[in-house]
Amino acid sequence: MKFCSNCGAASIALSVPEGDNRERFVCGNCSVIHYQNPNIVAGCLPVWEDKVLLCRRAIEPRYGFWNIPSGYLENGESVEDGALREVWEEAAAKVNIDYLITLYNLPKINQVYLQFVGELVGGKFGVGEESLECALFTEATIPWEEMAFTSSAFTLRHYFEDRRSGRRRLHRGCYPEV
Amino acid sequence: MKFCSNCGAASIALSVPEGDNRERFVCGNCSVIHYQNPNIVAGCLPVWEDKVLLCRRAIEPRYGFWNIPSGYLENGESVEDGALREVWEEAAAKVNIDYLITLYNLPKINQVYLQFVGELVGGKFGVGEESLECALFTEATIPWEEMAFTSSAFTLRHYFEDRRSGRRRLHRGCYPEV
Repeated sequence: MKFCSNCGAASIALSVPEGDNRERFVCGNCSVIHYQNPNIVAGCLPVWEDKVLLCRRAIEPRYGFWNIPSGYLENGESVEDGALREVWEEAAAKVNIDYLITLYNLPKINQVYLQFVGELVGGKFGVGEESLECALFTEATIPWEEMAFTSSAFTLRHYFEDRRSGRRRLHRGCYPEV
Repeated sequence: MKFCSNCGAASIALSVPEGDNRERFVCGNCSVIHYQNPNIVAGCLPVWEDKVLLCRRAIEPRYGFWNIPSGYLENGESVEDGALREVWEEAAAKVNIDYLITLYNLPKINQVYLQFVGELVGGKFGVGEESLECALFTEATIPWEEMAFTSSAFTLRHYFEDRRSGRRRLHRGCYPEV
């Protein structure tokens, strides 16, 4: 941040505002405080019979690697709506959300993943604009070495573990681990 | 947003960037796109014996009303760390986080509440700078008519319901309801 989005002055500096306890970007001209906060990445693992749907990324970062349909939550959306939108955008598929499986923190890059498990409606899917291909995988065929992000592997590992014991529950994680 | 924080030009306008499907604040001078996304409000309901700890707000909005210790997640924090910090800042108390009880969406104001249940360590608490007072309440003494936010009432209602049946589970909600 170089200029103040409120007054246009090149007077942005890090300082601790009165009554606060951490550094913020503050404008020395108009005194407006520019807060910056983590972003939510919303997603859903589509399930069909004994398989799950993954997408191979057509965009950076991690172009060509496999991922659970997920992306930044937008203003005006619920987390559930964001997850449904991402499944549609990345896999041209519809899901019925079942439960939240993952709260996964990436504090170094200010991201919080919230991923659901959902039923892939009719077992039908296509290939979204942000994907090179989409495909259904059994547990035995998951491309573990080609996963885009640690969040995806975290969710998939817990999903298959819980499925064996018939559990539907939330898992919390952090990278790096604490 | 009136001025571009990257180049300082008064050239910000809403438009749909190439490859995107929704309006963003885009600078007509340097072409930088200024994304805006929802914020996480992290919190924890401290539990001690048959009581829960609430804080009466010393700040707007909803000055004087009761709330579960909660506040904006900061960059560099996990959701759990944010919840622990808020309990400390608002109630000068420490908690051991037990489980995530609430995912509550407020899409009209771009907020997502994530609230935990935790054990109030030693049953001890004080009064944080952002609180007028803090107090322990049994279910029968909760000031339902003086709750600050619908998110707090949502979490409290489900906490007491589940406690009667010995359940520890996540509840998802949205305001307005969908």
